[in-house]
Amino acid sequence: MSEYEQMLRKFQKELNAGTVSLVLLAILDRTAEPLYGYQIAKRIEEGWQVGTPVKQGTLYPVLRSMEENGLLTSSVEPSVAGPPRKYYTITDAGRGVLGEWKSHWTRTRDFVDATLEGNVG
Amino acid sequence: MSEYEQMLRKFQKELNAGTVSLVLLAILDRTAEPLYGYQIAKRIEEGWQVGTPVKQGTLYPVLRSMEENGLLTSSVEPSVAGPPRKYYTITDAGRGVLGEWKSHWTRTRDFVDATLEGNVG
Repeated sequence: MSEYEQMLRKFQKELNAGTVSLVLLAILDRTAEPLYGYQIAKRIEEGWQVGTPVKQGTLYPVLRSMEENGLLTSSVEPSVAGPPRKYYTITDAGRGVLGEWKSHWTRTRDFVDATLEGNVG
Repeated sequence: MSEYEQMLRKFQKELNAGTVSLVLLAILDRTAEPLYGYQIAKRIEEGWQVGTPVKQGTLYPVLRSMEENGLLTSSVEPSVAGPPRKYYTITDAGRGVLGEWKSHWTRTRDFVDATLEGNVG
């Protein structure tokens, strides 16, 4: 891998670290029913269409940490085939946090876009 | 600081880690003359208007690492008052990297926005 590919990877990784939590909360906020990790990963993958940079394995620790912090609750249900599944639901606290993060996202996005369009700097 | 404030800080920090490098390159790409760290910080601050989450101190290591990776070059010039200043210029390699990062930014931004609008998940 070239130096520039490595830097692109690092850039993607940093950008994703911030956006994955936001995307997870937004997906769980919109859904009518609780979702398990793989379902959420699938929705992200479909949303990205080609080559999502979010690996499934990176979602699980984020989901766990959000549950520990009270943004999500979970219930474990048996599945027809395979191990039991952990279904996640967003809490009221999670909705509150989502609202705050959304407004920070909007400001950051508008600032980055303004800079790229040459209106800053 | 409450638990949710801590999480907002963490979210901001992660989101900034990805966007600061992009913003730095974009500002240096647009400017006609080389800029030193404080000038870049000022432009970012003005662009954000109120309460930028990007601290000046966080810019310097990013600038240094970009120079080490060949995205920027620098020259040290004496200043009328105070210590000499390090002026940064974007390189051709830096412009190439900026182009790639821009397209990754655009895809990520559109995906996050689509999710927040309820078109994903």
